[in-house]
Amino acid sequence: MDKLKIGLAGLGRIGKIHLENLSRYFPEAEMMAVMDVSEETAAIAAKYQVQHFYDNFGEMLTKHRLDAVVICSPTDTHADYVEMAATTGLDIFCEKPLDLSLERVKAVLKTVDEHQVKLMLGFNRRFDPEFKKIHDLVQQEAVGDPQIIKITSRDPGPPPVSYIKVSGGLFLDMSIHDFDMARYISGKKVVEVFAAGAVKVDEAIGAAGDIDTALITLIFEDQSMAVIDNSRKAAYGYDQRLEVFGSKGMVQAENKFQSNHKLLTANGLTGDLPLYFFLERYEESYRLEMKAFLDALASGETIPGGGLDGLLAMEIGLAARKSMEENRAVKISEIGIQPKMKDHECI
Amino acid sequence: MDKLKIGLAGLGRIGKIHLENLSRYFPEAEMMAVMDVSEETAAIAAKYQVQHFYDNFGEMLTKHRLDAVVICSPTDTHADYVEMAATTGLDIFCEKPLDLSLERVKAVLKTVDEHQVKLMLGFNRRFDPEFKKIHDLVQQEAVGDPQIIKITSRDPGPPPVSYIKVSGGLFLDMSIHDFDMARYISGKKVVEVFAAGAVKVDEAIGAAGDIDTALITLIFEDQSMAVIDNSRKAAYGYDQRLEVFGSKGMVQAENKFQSNHKLLTANGLTGDLPLYFFLERYEESYRLEMKAFLDALASGETIPGGGLDGLLAMEIGLAARKSMEENRAVKISEIGIQPKMKDHECI
Amino acid sequence: MDKLKIGLAGLGRIGKIHLENLSRYFPEAEMMAVMDVSEETAAIAAKYQVQHFYDNFGEMLTKHRLDAVVICSPTDTHADYVEMAATTGLDIFCEKPLDLSLERVKAVLKTVDEHQVKLMLGFNRRFDPEFKKIHDLVQQEAVGDPQIIKITSRDPGPPPVSYIKVSGGLFLDMSIHDFDMARYISGKKVVEVFAAGAVKVDEAIGAAGDIDTALITLIFEDQSMAVIDNSRKAAYGYDQRLEVFGSKGMVQAENKFQSNHKLLTANGLTGDLPLYFFLERYEESYRLEMKAFLDALASGETIPGGGLDGLLAMEIGLAARKSMEENRAVKISEIGIQPKMKDHECI
Amino acid sequence: MDKLKIGLAGLGRIGKIHLENLSRYFPEAEMMAVMDVSEETAAIAAKYQVQHFYDNFGEMLTKHRLDAVVICSPTDTHADYVEMAATTGLDIFCEKPLDLSLERVKAVLKTVDEHQVKLMLGFNRRFDPEFKKIHDLVQQEAVGDPQIIKITSRDPGPPPVSYIKVSGGLFLDMSIHDFDMARYISGKKVVEVFAAGAVKVDEAIGAAGDIDTALITLIFEDQSMAVIDNSRKAAYGYDQRLEVFGSKGMVQAENKFQSNHKLLTANGLTGDLPLYFFLERYEESYRLEMKAFLDALASGETIPGGGLDGLLAMEIGLAARKSMEENRAVKISEIGIQPKMKDHECI
Repeated sequence: MDKLKIGLAGLGRIGKIHLENLSRYFPEAEMMAVMDVSEETAAIAAKYQVQHFYDNFGEMLTKHRLDAVVICSPTDTHADYVEMAATTGLDIFCEKPLDLSLERVKAVLKTVDEHQVKLMLGFNRRFDPEFKKIHDLVQQEAVGDPQIIKITSRDPGPPPVSYIKVSGGLFLDMSIHDFDMARYISGKKVVEVFAAGAVKVDEAIGAAGDIDTALITLIFEDQSMAVIDNSRKAAYGYDQRLEVFGSKGMVQAENKFQSNHKLLTANGLTGDLPLYFFLERYEESYRLEMKAFLDALASGETIPGGGLDGLLAMEIGLAARKSMEENRAVKISEIGIQPKMKDHECI
Repeated sequence: MDKLKIGLAGLGRIGKIHLENLSRYFPEAEMMAVMDVSEETAAIAAKYQVQHFYDNFGEMLTKHRLDAVVICSPTDTHADYVEMAATTGLDIFCEKPLDLSLERVKAVLKTVDEHQVKLMLGFNRRFDPEFKKIHDLVQQEAVGDPQIIKITSRDPGPPPVSYIKVSGGLFLDMSIHDFDMARYISGKKVVEVFAAGAVKVDEAIGAAGDIDTALITLIFEDQSMAVIDNSRKAAYGYDQRLEVFGSKGMVQAENKFQSNHKLLTANGLTGDLPLYFFLERYEESYRLEMKAFLDALASGETIPGGGLDGLLAMEIGLAARKSMEENRAVKISEIGIQPKMKDHECI
Repeated sequence: MDKLKIGLAGLGRIGKIHLENLSRYFPEAEMMAVMDVSEETAAIAAKYQVQHFYDNFGEMLTKHRLDAVVICSPTDTHADYVEMAATTGLDIFCEKPLDLSLERVKAVLKTVDEHQVKLMLGFNRRFDPEFKKIHDLVQQEAVGDPQIIKITSRDPGPPPVSYIKVSGGLFLDMSIHDFDMARYISGKKVVEVFAAGAVKVDEAIGAAGDIDTALITLIFEDQSMAVIDNSRKAAYGYDQRLEVFGSKGMVQAENKFQSNHKLLTANGLTGDLPLYFFLERYEESYRLEMKAFLDALASGETIPGGGLDGLLAMEIGLAARKSMEENRAVKISEIGIQPKMKDHECI
Repeated sequence: MDKLKIGLAGLGRIGKIHLENLSRYFPEAEMMAVMDVSEETAAIAAKYQVQHFYDNFGEMLTKHRLDAVVICSPTDTHADYVEMAATTGLDIFCEKPLDLSLERVKAVLKTVDEHQVKLMLGFNRRFDPEFKKIHDLVQQEAVGDPQIIKITSRDPGPPPVSYIKVSGGLFLDMSIHDFDMARYISGKKVVEVFAAGAVKVDEAIGAAGDIDTALITLIFEDQSMAVIDNSRKAAYGYDQRLEVFGSKGMVQAENKFQSNHKLLTANGLTGDLPLYFFLERYEESYRLEMKAFLDALASGETIPGGGLDGLLAMEIGLAARKSMEENRAVKISEIGIQPKMKDHECI
């Protein structure tokens, strides 16, 4: 079988993870080219033995007959790059979000749809084995009909305020992963959102017009509920837990720890902290999501976590923002009309 | 030292617990009389070697020079009995709630205040050693400034619908314990409430005008938050957990289990369920709250968990009900004016 | 039904536990008299409302028509008191050991047998709910055929050297509980012992001719095995764990902790230590073993944990001592001939 | 820097792990050649893009100027291959054991010593992060002076009896990993061994002259102790735990589980089993031990886990065998004289 020819755009932290995973673990894929505006691009290409490198996305697409692109460049390039790739007929893996504008996202998805290419968004947590196990148990009705989903999602520290200013705000930048997780686990449509937020971590974040602490209630179409709690700073590291309570029982996913030892001395019991941040905690999920992307390309099956998922998570984020501003529950239907699309549907 | 002379009203499930505890563990108290309208009263008095028994509360108060009363009779008698006891100059332990009417509660507290007697409400969970440990750690600033409090509170099964109809509804009957717990742990004033509710357990509960599943957001005066999730039916038994996230860390109280064994076989890991319900889970807390009551009488110190706490928890419950009805955040200040009282203040 | 008339000898630490439990929890028993040579005897009797008190065991037996005695006096009185009680026709609960001499124990058991009274020894750990759960699961064949039993048994601190000198040594004083536990869990006969010991805690213990740290291998009749590790001093408190590995799986009983909270801060995960010592850890088991004694008297059924169990545990202890001295595996058959007795058989 | 030129012998299960790890994770190493007598050698070489392949070890050494060899071929080839590589001046990574004959091992180590090449044995468990954490905590005196080390080591199922017949027996084939772990953790010399064994898993193993279940006591030079329990078949999978009890406390390493979820239903609490076997459990340790080997070559520092460690673990195994046969504690000094060697010492 011919190898899948891949071009990768963006060699930041996440881009390097995908590049490394593609090089190490997927002999079925061939890294044809990388693209970044950084001066280190050549060096990185050399390190990973990628023969071609560019500082222009369009040029990369023109110079090679690629099968797919992996887009990890800054958020404000996503929409353009995806459209360019779709127009060229390439399948696309793109880090979330597609764009901070709902209208722009819809337009991009329309283009993707028209060109009948595949689009997968980087909701990597769906591929975390601990969370996938919960998902699968819920699918197998181990807890019966889900009634209350609880998601704890706290970062070890906030990004720079400069980043926060262009991030779209906590709901669209951070909680959006949790909105997708709630949808992934529930399998139901979110219809209403209530969000409370506060500035508890850093007043500079508040001064920048954002919050750093949030508690969000989601109501699904069947009146089941989810609660998400977010903080930009957990003193003890990355806190990523999930619980599903249903008619037959309850299932929990604990954090993953740096080690599982327990030490008992006269001073008490002590142990290690959770894995520090997403690079450590979701190392495996990055690999597994890339596998899922490549497998979907090879099999022709539906992409798990496609563009519509991104759109729907974004709508929840916009509803959360509106809810906090207006201090009331906001219906998703107040945000925008959900497009009817076939290919990207997945939950 | 003279023994404290105690009269106890109400020999239902909780009344028997208090009677048994008073008989077994507190030689400093003397059970002078019990009162209940049931035909079994004489037999129960005999079993616990209580010499006097009545079917009329006022008669019990008249016939003996009591120091204190313990009121475990039906909710609709609480207000009257407390007023009678207060007027007689007796110190009072009363199961919550004082009454389902906010106005009536305020009137009772006024009477209690005027007669300068002590009033303790049965918020027994404050005395649960696991939760008290969390409280004490928070007080010692082990987690720094609390930012998000999470309370899980699910019953193993719903009470009869006949009970639910007169219970005041889930928020006032069940969540009220959790509202008090949130106040106890936070030490801050609750200023706003958002509540979502659903009927997931039994449609008869819905037909009776109540809900059986709820997710409630509390906002404290410093913008810190709490989330409470309630269900009338957890298939796996009584689920009572607490988590406090703050600026310096996070602390959790797990459920208490029937046993802590772990069994590993080819079929997987298995273990026991949590203790079945409040009688098992809070056995120790009932004893410890009675000890706190007797200790406060003996020392003359402030009662832990007095009337104002009941009033404030009730206000949160009323705000929750209003929030669910109007699908918006409701300020506590919309519910009623908080009275200025000295003696019952506690948190 | 008439109450069981009980006399209790020995008002030390354990004696007070039994007296308190008998007073509080067992209305079917009537504490007729207590006996101790201490000057505090009258005061203790008064505190527990026991009308009669003595400083002579024989006098107590003579003055009252007792049904049973509870013997918690010093070890060197056990054999005499048991014989006196047996001769008087009373049923007997006696703290272990009956005596430090195997011959004396056999003689006492013979007397007990001849007078056809019941004798229960205070192997209270059999009644610990965590260990009983393991026992019951093993009986239900949850782990199949037991192959390896692991018992961890470490004290928070050593007794005074003066006590150790007359204790019979670590194997007879401390490990003997674990030997009984191994027999209780296995249900098989121990046929061979290998013991290694060391002085790791306090050289004064070594100077007194004893050890403070031990690792003991037991071989059962079916070649299944048990390992017991003992230390007189665990810096973190009382360590009492049990694990059974069998053909179908493995089951573990963890320690019981002072609380189950987990605190995560930048410094790591912390939690509480195990309950401090036997008074805390086995509080419930003392109550449950007394219940078992009273229930057996009431029902006429076989006593759980009778004299033969004491004898068999003692033989294992003597074999352990011999094994350590001779640095080889020692067969139980080298220690003494096991008497054939009916009534006390129980495992 | 020039890449280290590596040749690898043996493409069985472990050989493939090392080949994959060397290909994926270590750009500083260049896989020059592989060698195996299997017909699949060419295909495997192609899959991992290794240009040269052989069916003769000597030929591989002759045809290339290698820096080091990785030997994963059958045990009975180890001694010869190591000698050939040492004579050729190559550094060596070899799976344990070097040989089943103590004399042969000593001869090989002498050759290695004379040619001043490095030799690392595949005691991969030393590189397991959970166990290394325990080791490091012990080194940091977190538990003070170690007194009792407990190692649980049970396989999910026995190898074929044909393998067992040539394996050297449970003590040399299976327990030897645990003997090395005991030495690694303790840092002390083992001076005496008592071993008990039984046939509990499969009578065919007994018929082949081996045991499948064992309980082994090790005595270190300072009279501290270790206990190892082994079974060829744990119904619930691979059980690999470690506990160190010392003067200041106790530290435990738990198993690693397939997932950490907990599911509570009316039927009880359930969860996943430990990772199935060594390929899953020690996946990371294989990678880390290869890193340690390459790092030691690059830095010129002492090899962790060298030949002397293999020899010393083997002596413990031989003492265990003798102990079981003679049913007594056996001194290591009865087994063979420990050679004085500088380079391979490590603990």
